[in-house]
Amino acid sequence: MDLPEVGDVKNVDTGMRAHQATTLLLTRSDVRRFLPLSDCVDAVEQAFGRNAEAQDLPPRILGMHVPDGGFHAKAAVLGQYFATKLNANFPLNPGRTGLPTIQGVVILADTKDGRLLAIMDSIEITILRTAAATALAARHLARPDAEIITVCGCGSQGVIQLEALVHTCPIKHAFAYDTDRSRADEFARSRTAALGFVVEAIDDLAGSIRQSDIVVTCTPAREILIHAVDVRPGTFIAAVGADSEHKQELDPALLARATVVVDSLEQCATIGELHHALDAGLMTRAAVHAELGQVIVGRRPGRASAEEITIFDSTGTALQDVAAAAMVYERARAAAAGTMPPLSS
Amino acid sequence: MDLPEVGDVKNVDTGMRAHQATTLLLTRSDVRRFLPLSDCVDAVEQAFGRNAEAQDLPPRILGMHVPDGGFHAKAAVLGQYFATKLNANFPLNPGRTGLPTIQGVVILADTKDGRLLAIMDSIEITILRTAAATALAARHLARPDAEIITVCGCGSQGVIQLEALVHTCPIKHAFAYDTDRSRADEFARSRTAALGFVVEAIDDLAGSIRQSDIVVTCTPAREILIHAVDVRPGTFIAAVGADSEHKQELDPALLARATVVVDSLEQCATIGELHHALDAGLMTRAAVHAELGQVIVGRRPGRASAEEITIFDSTGTALQDVAAAAMVYERARAAAAGTMPPLSS
Repeated sequence: MDLPEVGDVKNVDTGMRAHQATTLLLTRSDVRRFLPLSDCVDAVEQAFGRNAEAQDLPPRILGMHVPDGGFHAKAAVLGQYFATKLNANFPLNPGRTGLPTIQGVVILADTKDGRLLAIMDSIEITILRTAAATALAARHLARPDAEIITVCGCGSQGVIQLEALVHTCPIKHAFAYDTDRSRADEFARSRTAALGFVVEAIDDLAGSIRQSDIVVTCTPAREILIHAVDVRPGTFIAAVGADSEHKQELDPALLARATVVVDSLEQCATIGELHHALDAGLMTRAAVHAELGQVIVGRRPGRASAEEITIFDSTGTALQDVAAAAMVYERARAAAAGTMPPLSS
Repeated sequence: MDLPEVGDVKNVDTGMRAHQATTLLLTRSDVRRFLPLSDCVDAVEQAFGRNAEAQDLPPRILGMHVPDGGFHAKAAVLGQYFATKLNANFPLNPGRTGLPTIQGVVILADTKDGRLLAIMDSIEITILRTAAATALAARHLARPDAEIITVCGCGSQGVIQLEALVHTCPIKHAFAYDTDRSRADEFARSRTAALGFVVEAIDDLAGSIRQSDIVVTCTPAREILIHAVDVRPGTFIAAVGADSEHKQELDPALLARATVVVDSLEQCATIGELHHALDAGLMTRAAVHAELGQVIVGRRPGRASAEEITIFDSTGTALQDVAAAAMVYERARAAAAGTMPPLSS
């Protein structure tokens, strides 16, 4: 636990009559309106690049469990912005209360004077910044001629991951896999209509992987989905699902023989696919090729050959959140959206 | 760093068409309206009592520094409520930008399903819950006949601390001290008018302490203000100011010879007055008499004699925040105040 030398309000004059900051209150729709995926990719690229140059503090995480779920806060600084994302994760919600599994909020503040700039819904921020990282990873790690993709997990993240990869690679055919076949069918139908190429629901995951140039996994799986034997040379895998200790989608042996790029070495070693490969003794931290930011700024190379298997281990960082939230804030402010009475009034 | 097994939104269907929770948006005025000090005392008493019985998880803290200040988040669970308080602390603000030193927000959520119940200004919550803890400590640690008090630090916390102590003890005279004499004068004038007894601004702090039954310190001091030699037998001291590593108001030798009660042993050993006494080798953790919750539930005794010097080391806990925020929420909801459009819409 790192306890900063910052006090409480207890012993200072809090300035009840002082200047009041304007804070924007932004809904999920506002976030969608102000954060097109392609712009989110640019924002996240800049943030990873900046972080690779170590200009800001490392992000921090705080978490608490309760019987049916948990809460976690992720905080990061990016230049003039500080953001904390507080997410509640209650997996039983959809079946029990009709509430979503994840509910949350991003608080954006100014690092010069601490003023509260915006309070915004966290869902769309998380979805978009996660897809943006995959797009960036694909730009550096997928083969330029990658045409066939398998999407494992047909939830809302599957939709946006495919969209991000279509913007980055010349995709011509997609396989869609979900443990719930009806979700895969619906995904195939809607994505075929939206994207203009065939998205095909499949049951034979191994068979589709063997034909794919790109595999993206965004499931809540807790055991291996993608086996090393099924992945052909030249494949790029974006491992998006695993973001907690017990989640896993990839065979650790696959990581051991691939070029592994992580979003955050520290996080991936604790909660990503890397964590399982380290646990199995099949990899060391030193065997990780790079953090994504290092590849983005050119300090480490991306894909080196057409035969290489490349893996992006994506756990999702607070840095991505602050980059996305800052862009939403700047645009909402320019559009005079989301104004609310000052909280401190 | 404790990383919970709670995932991101990345790999789940977030239920875009699902039921939407109603969240209240509450300003500083709302908090004042719904949280009279005496009720806040009751809420904090219940929370400390409950915590002493170890029914909930220990609170957690996350912090980040930036050049001119810092941000910290404190999180705690209290029964059906989870709260995170995010405070920005920028000491140069009042002189530089007119913004207050402390700006912040409390996010209150339901521990059954994670629904976001309220977003509220943090300032008044912090002020009130801090004063409430002092009132509770005084109830158990001050002499029943305590009549004369010295207030060190005449900011907004000084005002409310005195109010809390007046409600608890038969105060008849107060000395007011501040390094800025004009603040002490203004405090004396306004408090005499408000409270119906003489509040006297003084320069001779040691002299007033020697005549006092109660001393409350709520300054940003970083060196000893209250020397052991000046404190007479039977005095109760509420040490409210020190809540970070470098802050200090009491002589460690004074703690060593007093009955010391802490709000949180862990926090006080890190950032409270206790921390300096431990560092000086004048106390051990085992020499701490009790946590306040243990005294409240009767597992540990309060003051044992009229001669005893008692000290309450108050660092401010997330448990107090969640107790106060929950009360504000319940009352605001009953009054149909603060409704806003769902963030997730």
